[in-house]
Amino acid sequence: MADDILQRLTETIATRKGRTVGNSADNLAGNAADNSYVAKLFSKGEDAILKKIGEEATEVLLAAKSGDAQHLVYETADLWFHCMVLLAQHNRSAQDVLQELARREGVSGLDEIAGRDIAGLGEK
Amino acid sequence: MADDILQRLTETIATRKGRTVGNSADNLAGNAADNSYVAKLFSKGEDAILKKIGEEATEVLLAAKSGDAQHLVYETADLWFHCMVLLAQHNRSAQDVLQELARREGVSGLDEIAGRDIAGLGEK
Amino acid sequence: MADDILQRLTETIATRKGRTVGNSADNLAGNAADNSYVAKLFSKGEDAILKKIGEEATEVLLAAKSGDAQHLVYETADLWFHCMVLLAQHNRSAQDVLQELARREGVSGLDEIAGRDIAGLGEK
Amino acid sequence: MADDILQRLTETIATRKGRTVGNSADNLAGNAADNSYVAKLFSKGEDAILKKIGEEATEVLLAAKSGDAQHLVYETADLWFHCMVLLAQHNRSAQDVLQELARREGVSGLDEIAGRDIAGLGEK
Repeated sequence: MADDILQRLTETIATRKGRTVGNSADNLAGNAADNSYVAKLFSKGEDAILKKIGEEATEVLLAAKSGDAQHLVYETADLWFHCMVLLAQHNRSAQDVLQELARREGVSGLDEIAGRDIAGLGEK
Repeated sequence: MADDILQRLTETIATRKGRTVGNSADNLAGNAADNSYVAKLFSKGEDAILKKIGEEATEVLLAAKSGDAQHLVYETADLWFHCMVLLAQHNRSAQDVLQELARREGVSGLDEIAGRDIAGLGEK
Repeated sequence: MADDILQRLTETIATRKGRTVGNSADNLAGNAADNSYVAKLFSKGEDAILKKIGEEATEVLLAAKSGDAQHLVYETADLWFHCMVLLAQHNRSAQDVLQELARREGVSGLDEIAGRDIAGLGEK
Repeated sequence: MADDILQRLTETIATRKGRTVGNSADNLAGNAADNSYVAKLFSKGEDAILKKIGEEATEVLLAAKSGDAQHLVYETADLWFHCMVLLAQHNRSAQDVLQELARREGVSGLDEIAGRDIAGLGEK
């Protein structure tokens, strides 16, 4: 099920991205422009997507501090969804992210995921 | 496959969270403390997890701007992983997030996901 | 001059914060409610201010990446302004921030400012 | 006083930025490399500065939620200081930010600052 929803969202996002291709900013009549939220986000360009990532990450933090676990789930869904839009902008998908997580776990277990982060802290 | 990795990570994170329960900050000898990255993160408390969310969201933005799609996948994996740690802190999991995404899609399609965001913009 | 503008903004923000005190959410008629942007932000509560901080910090990052230095100045002004609103929410001001910066410089020079950050990295 | 500290920090940051010019990554002996925190940050490049902005903005949020006003002042000082480093990277300074704030106030009062933000929300 879980796998299914990410796959379905990936396909829907890709479809809506496709519909914005070749659309000029002035939205010529006769163009099959997709007026959905996602299509509009793509048409605004990458910075609009990145602003949403920044906003949703902030909302995840505030939801966590609110102590309302269901609200946290809700805001995390928003964040992940907009990450999927960003990935599509770069011709990547949630499946690539899951494969990266699986690769790390496969190589040396969960600590490999962590190990890099600890090692990387000095560079940040 | 995708579903599997999220499930496996959820279980591993839950295990490591469990091992920090009852551990005092001074790490008494004899205590079966888990010294893994995730266990340490839990033992530092929620703000340490939230700082990582903020850091990783920033890295996702910078990766996107770098134009390196594989780097973007990598940083998104970091962000989602730390979101899973945060969810575990609140007794929730990636599965809850996927169910929320599926619920939205089920109710009224992808635009429902977007509709809320558009509606919500005026409040932000 | 610089000092003056921060002082003037501090006073104006404080005035608008005061006007929201005691205002109920339903905005009773006859109440001298301040409908300015800042008054509205205060009336929405701290999380609304914090969301703006998150948004403006993201915009500073994107402005820097755009390479447009004047745009960066503009977005930094937005960020600092909203920080001043947040400080007022906590009965503090830009003057306290400047005093903290002066204190650090006075103690041991600019490196003291940095030293803490370097030392702090391992904890983040 | 306030004006003085921003001016002094601007000058110190500019000096340290200058010392990293022409320094190769391998830090040749004999090179008058500045090993201060700020010089190191400049030598790592803009993304390192931007990561610090993201981190410090997150810490401002967490400090606000902690309810410790002095901690908020402290973290805001960190954020503004790193903004000044970023501005220097773009040959701008805190003085430019203060002038921008003064310009907005001069044109039409504090609401002009806010007006743009409200107007801009729909675009974000």
